[in-house]
Amino acid sequence: RCPRCIPPPRRRTHSYSPRPSPFLGVVINGVTSTDVWPLPQKLAISEERYPLSPTHFNFYYGEDQASIMKDCSLLDSAFTRYFPLIFPDLTSGKPEKAFSLVVTMHQKDCDGYPNEGSSERYQLNVSAGQAVLNSDTVWGALRGLETFSQLVQQEEDGTYFINKTEIEDFPSFQYRGILLDTSRHFLPLKAILNTLDAMAYSKFNVFHWHIVDDPSFPYQSRTFPDLSSKGAYHPMSHIYTQSDVRRVLTHARLRGIRVIPEFDSPGHTQSWGKGQPNLLTPCYKGSSPSGTFGPINPASALSYIFMSQFLKEVTSVFPDPYFHLGGDEVNFSCWQSNPDVRAFMQKMGFGKDYTKLESFYMENIVNITSNLNKTSIVWQDVFDYHERIPKDTILHIWKGLPAQYKAETSRMTKAGHRVLLGAPWYINHIAYGQDWRISYNVQPLNFSGTEEQKKLVIGGEVSMWGEYVDATNLSPRLWPRACAAAERLWSDESQTRSAEAAFPRLQAFRCSLLRRGVRAEPLSPGHCSDEYRGI
Amino acid sequence: RCPRCIPPPRRRTHSYSPRPSPFLGVVINGVTSTDVWPLPQKLAISEERYPLSPTHFNFYYGEDQASIMKDCSLLDSAFTRYFPLIFPDLTSGKPEKAFSLVVTMHQKDCDGYPNEGSSERYQLNVSAGQAVLNSDTVWGALRGLETFSQLVQQEEDGTYFINKTEIEDFPSFQYRGILLDTSRHFLPLKAILNTLDAMAYSKFNVFHWHIVDDPSFPYQSRTFPDLSSKGAYHPMSHIYTQSDVRRVLTHARLRGIRVIPEFDSPGHTQSWGKGQPNLLTPCYKGSSPSGTFGPINPASALSYIFMSQFLKEVTSVFPDPYFHLGGDEVNFSCWQSNPDVRAFMQKMGFGKDYTKLESFYMENIVNITSNLNKTSIVWQDVFDYHERIPKDTILHIWKGLPAQYKAETSRMTKAGHRVLLGAPWYINHIAYGQDWRISYNVQPLNFSGTEEQKKLVIGGEVSMWGEYVDATNLSPRLWPRACAAAERLWSDESQTRSAEAAFPRLQAFRCSLLRRGVRAEPLSPGHCSDEYRGI
Repeated sequence: RCPRCIPPPRRRTHSYSPRPSPFLGVVINGVTSTDVWPLPQKLAISEERYPLSPTHFNFYYGEDQASIMKDCSLLDSAFTRYFPLIFPDLTSGKPEKAFSLVVTMHQKDCDGYPNEGSSERYQLNVSAGQAVLNSDTVWGALRGLETFSQLVQQEEDGTYFINKTEIEDFPSFQYRGILLDTSRHFLPLKAILNTLDAMAYSKFNVFHWHIVDDPSFPYQSRTFPDLSSKGAYHPMSHIYTQSDVRRVLTHARLRGIRVIPEFDSPGHTQSWGKGQPNLLTPCYKGSSPSGTFGPINPASALSYIFMSQFLKEVTSVFPDPYFHLGGDEVNFSCWQSNPDVRAFMQKMGFGKDYTKLESFYMENIVNITSNLNKTSIVWQDVFDYHERIPKDTILHIWKGLPAQYKAETSRMTKAGHRVLLGAPWYINHIAYGQDWRISYNVQPLNFSGTEEQKKLVIGGEVSMWGEYVDATNLSPRLWPRACAAAERLWSDESQTRSAEAAFPRLQAFRCSLLRRGVRAEPLSPGHCSDEYRGI
Repeated sequence: RCPRCIPPPRRRTHSYSPRPSPFLGVVINGVTSTDVWPLPQKLAISEERYPLSPTHFNFYYGEDQASIMKDCSLLDSAFTRYFPLIFPDLTSGKPEKAFSLVVTMHQKDCDGYPNEGSSERYQLNVSAGQAVLNSDTVWGALRGLETFSQLVQQEEDGTYFINKTEIEDFPSFQYRGILLDTSRHFLPLKAILNTLDAMAYSKFNVFHWHIVDDPSFPYQSRTFPDLSSKGAYHPMSHIYTQSDVRRVLTHARLRGIRVIPEFDSPGHTQSWGKGQPNLLTPCYKGSSPSGTFGPINPASALSYIFMSQFLKEVTSVFPDPYFHLGGDEVNFSCWQSNPDVRAFMQKMGFGKDYTKLESFYMENIVNITSNLNKTSIVWQDVFDYHERIPKDTILHIWKGLPAQYKAETSRMTKAGHRVLLGAPWYINHIAYGQDWRISYNVQPLNFSGTEEQKKLVIGGEVSMWGEYVDATNLSPRLWPRACAAAERLWSDESQTRSAEAAFPRLQAFRCSLLRRGVRAEPLSPGHCSDEYRGI
């Protein structure tokens, strides 16, 4: 007996008997399967297969584009990145015929950042010896490249192959985000960069960086360095320097991912107060200060002067046209206790209604941000208190069960606001078993409203709040659970209604994530031919 | 400004304002704190501190023992292992006075394996320049060494120190186990070895290796190599060779941890059937075999012949006097469908009561194991079906809520059986938030019974079943959640009733785990000065 002499199977599949039946793509010519995640909008795969080999493979620009694309470092670096993802084992595969992936784009936009208007549409046609990838923009080319990398498979003997394939693809929703919270726990830069890598594999395109909050202020401000030197968990080891932020921005841009920072105020700002005296509201016990502090003081002119200066800095650091201003969960009790705030309420004629005070504060902050040429995103609380918030403000829904968030979506879109759906995807909340199915079954447009209203839902966001999450468990909590929302937000809902049908494809995708070094947790008993190696 | 010039704080503490109040040890001489986990039985810490330095520190054997302990490789390797745990930063600390840890034992038992009779008692007295560690056995010395390593702390400037301390310590329960399931997902050897390391840090002393089950058979048998070559997920990459098993046994022994394997039968054996034809019961549909198989065939003599040969092998491979035979969750429907089994039932006079058939099977298997000089552990199902199971069989409770497992403990101990409590610590089940508190609040002896009955509860076990767990998420699911049971099973219950009081100590211990390279997840917002570095 020589069991070690048997060559190992190489297919990137997940197996446990009974072996899950493969997902069937649209069949042109006999039956075959695809494991692409998220599912492309239009997909036709034939049984015909073409061999590929790492020694006889090339990326090219379309003939008429070769010269003008010469300096497209964004795509060049994507080619470098994808080559080992397409060919994980460079020594495998017999060189047979040459194969090339030819990329053609309509716009040469290699040097910018993606934004809300960026087309991610692409077409991919795989035939003998050649695949043609066509897109409007570099961002679409990146998405097509990802799809191409997922189409390449390996035979048991190691030979790479790709099926004859025709794909036309584009996202159902423009905004497909993941929120990471770097305040409740500090996430080392590498954890953020690894997350961006895995996001690109699932075609997420927005990193919502909830960078500061009550527990700590890790952003190192150029204008107000005390904010992090006094408000971070540690002034050196637990901060993001300007150069760290630039690395995140660059890493994200190269993957077609927008970075939208959130500097949440007036609540969730305890850590701001450590480095910025006179910013927070002193709480009172009876007639004297208690020594504790509440939200940012909305009655003090100093607050608005500080916020103007601070927002001027951070809106210039983060290039995205969107900016998240927070505005959630403001506790009024400290404001109520403070005599200056009470006097201000009286002067403004707000009576005892502190929601008016919060609205007043947010309106000022939104105006500051607007003057800095940014579109504001705010949490739903701001709309709930103040329906007349400027129309171009995007509202981020985070509360409630389906009935509640659907009603909220109706109200907000009826008022003409663009809406971002967060509530169904708070996946920092965990439960035993296959809770990805709950995320998968969400129907973002299933609310009462007109066609015009439905168009106002710009997308959705997976939140990974940090109460119980840091670098030790971030990856396995996020992956593959976030993939469910990735498909819901990218793919055609009518083709992806069944979590049961998606299950084997998600298992196969999870195995791909492992092979790419993402610590993605298992979905059910079974194994991947390439298990996680990074223990 | 030069924020990077500030020296980093070095205390291995967890902090988030409001900073948790430190746990106060028993105070001799002023107030001080200890972060030892699990809490020693008797602990007196004084404010007096002594400096230590890695360049002036030594382990010694007691004077009269120096010659006879010369060849105790177990303790010598423990000294090597603990030195960098005591001094994580070898360049820190000013050499002041020399410090030695003097180890004295009553028995020289360096070459054996720990077992149910091994004393883990130790005394530790720390005074100026010297700590004296006294124990009956090497196993007690290992526990004392762990405690010593946790007592050494660092000042902000890096200086190591230890407080004047007197400890008398021993476990409340003899059996403190962790179950890993290597069948539902294969766990690479390194994941098992890392778990053993972390177990030693929490003073766990039994690794219950649920090595095979329905989904896969990764144990490579010498006698029946087909079991793994056909029943493992992969015949080479997803198996434990004999040499792998020996590495686990050695790694565990060096840390005072017993390895108790489980070869669960007659149910949970689907994977056995792939490499051992004629072992499982053919299920019938009407009058012909359906092609599927049920539990091991209890009506066939071949089953007992196979089990005798197989158990002869595995009881010799695993040295522990205990052996886990499983016996849980037997589904009777396949047996009922099989005409041979039905005929056997009739012949044996079992009527329609298939629990009698299962009892018959288990009785035979327990007898085989007994003749191989092993004490059997079985899951509670065996007792539930068959109260006259041999008295020296240990019963493992896994079912139900507190009211149920308490009643079961009463019944079993009343029948004179030793009991192992698993039910309250199935921590593969996860919930959002601080679910360690539930584990911590378990009271193993809080059931109705005499003092004699209470003595029959030998301990408890944390289970990490593998449906949704593999190397990607094992560590953060296990640590620090399993630490709650570790303290419940080691420490004096009357001193450790309050999870609230334990919380800051557990947070500090979790930071120590991170510093030692264990990917232990966070318990609440906050940070450790040494975060997990292994991203």
